[in-house]
Amino acid sequence: MLSKNKIKYIHSLALKKHRSEDHVFVAEGPRLVGELLPVFSANYIAATREWADDNASLLQRIGVEPDIVTPDELRKVSSLETPQQVLAIFQQPEHQVDACQTIADSLCLALDDVQNPGNLGTIIRVADWFGITDIFCSRNSADVFNPKTVQATMGGLARVRIHEVDLPELLASLPAATPVYGTFLNAPSIYSSELTSTGLIIMGNEGRGISDAVAAHVYRRITIPNYPEGSPTTESLNVAIATAIVCAEFRRPLTLDSRLQ
Amino acid sequence: MLSKNKIKYIHSLALKKHRSEDHVFVAEGPRLVGELLPVFSANYIAATREWADDNASLLQRIGVEPDIVTPDELRKVSSLETPQQVLAIFQQPEHQVDACQTIADSLCLALDDVQNPGNLGTIIRVADWFGITDIFCSRNSADVFNPKTVQATMGGLARVRIHEVDLPELLASLPAATPVYGTFLNAPSIYSSELTSTGLIIMGNEGRGISDAVAAHVYRRITIPNYPEGSPTTESLNVAIATAIVCAEFRRPLTLDSRLQ
Repeated sequence: MLSKNKIKYIHSLALKKHRSEDHVFVAEGPRLVGELLPVFSANYIAATREWADDNASLLQRIGVEPDIVTPDELRKVSSLETPQQVLAIFQQPEHQVDACQTIADSLCLALDDVQNPGNLGTIIRVADWFGITDIFCSRNSADVFNPKTVQATMGGLARVRIHEVDLPELLASLPAATPVYGTFLNAPSIYSSELTSTGLIIMGNEGRGISDAVAAHVYRRITIPNYPEGSPTTESLNVAIATAIVCAEFRRPLTLDSRLQ
Repeated sequence: MLSKNKIKYIHSLALKKHRSEDHVFVAEGPRLVGELLPVFSANYIAATREWADDNASLLQRIGVEPDIVTPDELRKVSSLETPQQVLAIFQQPEHQVDACQTIADSLCLALDDVQNPGNLGTIIRVADWFGITDIFCSRNSADVFNPKTVQATMGGLARVRIHEVDLPELLASLPAATPVYGTFLNAPSIYSSELTSTGLIIMGNEGRGISDAVAAHVYRRITIPNYPEGSPTTESLNVAIATAIVCAEFRRPLTLDSRLQ
């Protein structure tokens, strides 16, 4: 059963201010919560009797006693149109990484003010699919712990680390030879560009693309050509869609690689 | 100025039933309305004085006298969080095509019960980018004239034709040699498959993928491998994301083509 105070507290976490103060975030649904529970620390779980019974051994292992709730009670605290069996409050993870080393060792993403929480969550899901485990977000990007972002990651948050950074500063600190890619509407085709297996791929804001302060550090500009090239079309691709096409191209099986050497 | 009746009428068009009865749909914002106005017949336009002045010659050409409204009035009828200068009611286009001929002559998409209006709109935007001009939707797919779909197309609706069909029936009617592709979670990699420049690519429902009735007609099964292959990852990609990666791969510049022959 849910106390009035608990309902009020969960509602308060819709605001970034309150999530940040307590270093927590909310996740819902059996699949998402199931993926996050083994990875992040859960402070609180509200669940139906059915979910709690199905996950009894997991709950015992992590040592959390869930609040057993009815579907109607769950609806009162859920941010979903159709609440689903379980809602959990997790502690926000803190990832300390050496950014330069991480970018030297692996392929990473950077987001320059991606504003839409759903786009950010979808990008995390895409990164997860393509084995990209670190995303560097500019300070004006959407909050990764926004409920819409968390839900859209479909569990990707369990495997992808998000780092909030001063992006121009990070770029200035990278060794000169670091491959830094940026997507622009007018640039050489990604299909005729040399694509490396380490480095940084920068995606821009939904409306204005990559900012000048960030673009100044991008020496490998790429674009996704439309088809047939130059034909009338929509002005651009959605940023999560563009991220997916770019990541797929970087991760193409190398045995079939046709890239220009 | 907006009459009470007009406000009530525009609100009623949030429901498919009312849109279908009148064969109309609603689009908002200067960019989207600007792309649709030269292509579709507008029955009604509500616009700010600024937009009407900027588009005076276009309005004269199409012979529509807009209702001049204040931003506050526009807010009353808008389905957007931030209403934008203009709202138009268009007649639904009716496209009569010979499906078999169209699929024989060009690369087309088919959607098997894609349910989310935003996904459908994003898929139309992707199709537009990649020069795919015909999409065949199963009867249980989201309504293409849902406001969320229309807005997400970003104008793609002006260049992509959507056909509601009985999908298993259409597939049964295609000549045996027609290349019919379907995306599945377990199938040969798209990177080792022969990809043709005509034919049909089928994308499945968000939750259950391609239905058995449709899958029975798919002889070219493909998948987008995750990276590294077989590593733990999110269960699947979002359907609009998967559509984008697949379309990009079909439309790769042929000069750099590395496909197995």
